Amino acid sequence: MEDTMGTAKVAFQGEHGAFSEDAARQLLGSNIETIPFRTFEEMFEAVSTGATDAAAAPIENSLAGSVHKNYDLLMEHDLTIIGETNLRIVHHLIAQPGVALSEVRRVYSHPVALAQCERFLRANPQIEVAPAYDTAGSVKMIVESDSKDEAAIAGAAAAAVYGAEIIVESIEDNAKNYTRFLLLTRPERADSIKTVAGSKERKTSIVFRVANQPGALFRSIAAFALRDIDLTKIESRPIEGRPWEYSFYVDLIGDQHEPRVERALANLAELAESVRVLGSYPRSNE
Amino acid sequence: MEDTMGTAKVAFQGEHGAFSEDAARQLLGSNIETIPFRTFEEMFEAVSTGATDAAAAPIENSLAGSVHKNYDLLMEHDLTIIGETNLRIVHHLIAQPGVALSEVRRVYSHPVALAQCERFLRANPQIEVAPAYDTAGSVKMIVESDSKDEAAIAGAAAAAVYGAEIIVESIEDNAKNYTRFLLLTRPERADSIKTVAGSKERKTSIVFRVANQPGALFRSIAAFALRDIDLTKIESRPIEGRPWEYSFYVDLIGDQHEPRVERALANLAELAESVRVLGSYPRSNE
Repeated sequence: MEDTMGTAKVAFQGEHGAFSEDAARQLLGSNIETIPFRTFEEMFEAVSTGATDAAAAPIENSLAGSVHKNYDLLMEHDLTIIGETNLRIVHHLIAQPGVALSEVRRVYSHPVALAQCERFLRANPQIEVAPAYDTAGSVKMIVESDSKDEAAIAGAAAAAVYGAEIIVESIEDNAKNYTRFLLLTRPERADSIKTVAGSKERKTSIVFRVANQPGALFRSIAAFALRDIDLTKIESRPIEGRPWEYSFYVDLIGDQHEPRVERALANLAELAESVRVLGSYPRSNE
Repeated sequence: MEDTMGTAKVAFQGEHGAFSEDAARQLLGSNIETIPFRTFEEMFEAVSTGATDAAAAPIENSLAGSVHKNYDLLMEHDLTIIGETNLRIVHHLIAQPGVALSEVRRVYSHPVALAQCERFLRANPQIEVAPAYDTAGSVKMIVESDSKDEAAIAGAAAAAVYGAEIIVESIEDNAKNYTRFLLLTRPERADSIKTVAGSKERKTSIVFRVANQPGALFRSIAAFALRDIDLTKIESRPIEGRPWEYSFYVDLIGDQHEPRVERALANLAELAESVRVLGSYPRSNE
């Protein structure tokens, strides 16, 4: 970020200590003000109206797939992607300082996190499992209630934020749990906010819709293949109420203003019913 | 189903009254024995060992994307897809008989369902929101505790199963909420279990992996496009720890034993590092 803009305000969904807040810091460094929002709608609204400078939005998870809802919100708002990062999701058992595993009788977390720690929970049947709204919020709750026999499952940042302690590290079943986050801002702010994440290589994300014609997808992909443009993601999504019509999410290597990418996008525009460029940004390192 | 096999046992994840149980009945009719399992792992295990005849597994949701976890479990087990159905996810406010909306002080449900009913909950701030393990399980809980001032958010089947009542219908924000379920069985049982869902048209689902070569995806898709085979789904998924390598999920129109599909799959096998046919089945009507 430029020094002249002061501390950037970055919206995220969840409570302080959430994985999304980690992602915001990976994307912009630690000198930012992170602002929690309860829902994705409120987060998109905040960055669209200028209440915040940027937002860190999860867009896909290695186990749970693409977050279509956030693609939809991207399509509804005039925002641009200026960065991406992959965050490894590591779950810890967290309790108040001094509490030992043998003392824990109940554990709170979001049901998705609880399901991802199935093996640990099965090996510790003395611990009752209690679903909660979110991972970081569960840590906040056990600290606020000063509980000595309860724990939470959350990321390391949540323990730090609320002054709790990690009592068992990395209790997730599957270490291959990554969430990809996008950094979003209004187009007029795109040049004044710089992500610190990613490599020198540039990536571009687009969404396009093709008509119901045989081979339409094949010809669309040809626009890139014939120009040796590499794709890093392709995903079809049915269009509700229009059988046989699809939206496609495509990520490609290159900036939207490179001549060969410009030509490919112009070619695609001839074939597709609609094309929207969501943004160009530094490719994540992992 | 054949009359000779008796009542089929069908595994699903969740509690009785879950959306997955609805899907099982859409797939096989109401003359089945539905057997709940706590986790997807346990459900896949049950059908793989023959403890159940089939399983109904969610594979993608119109808002939340593909359930990669169930694709992974499909790859780990020797099962075949014999049917598909799209289930509209409709959330209702459900309480014990005689309880009015004005009396409800707390509502339980899975956090994903609660988030999908944001607008209703915001319009009713007198109702405290409480996360729970699952939707149908929340209905079970308020009925077992005989609560007069609590409600649950779940599907209509859950109200019927536990003798509760729908007090406000269709409270979800987005009506375009569909989950696609697959009917799975062991290959040797595939001919003895017949889905009642779907049209006369056949569909085939495959997973393939291509080497890290420019244009590899384009050539793979050409195997289908050049034979006028329509694709209804394509999705790339990064392969963990192997940058630039991807698995692709593809659904296509046609049966794996039709000559032109057979030839396309043989052609794909020349180009891809691996190809697995997950099954051929009647295409869903919607």
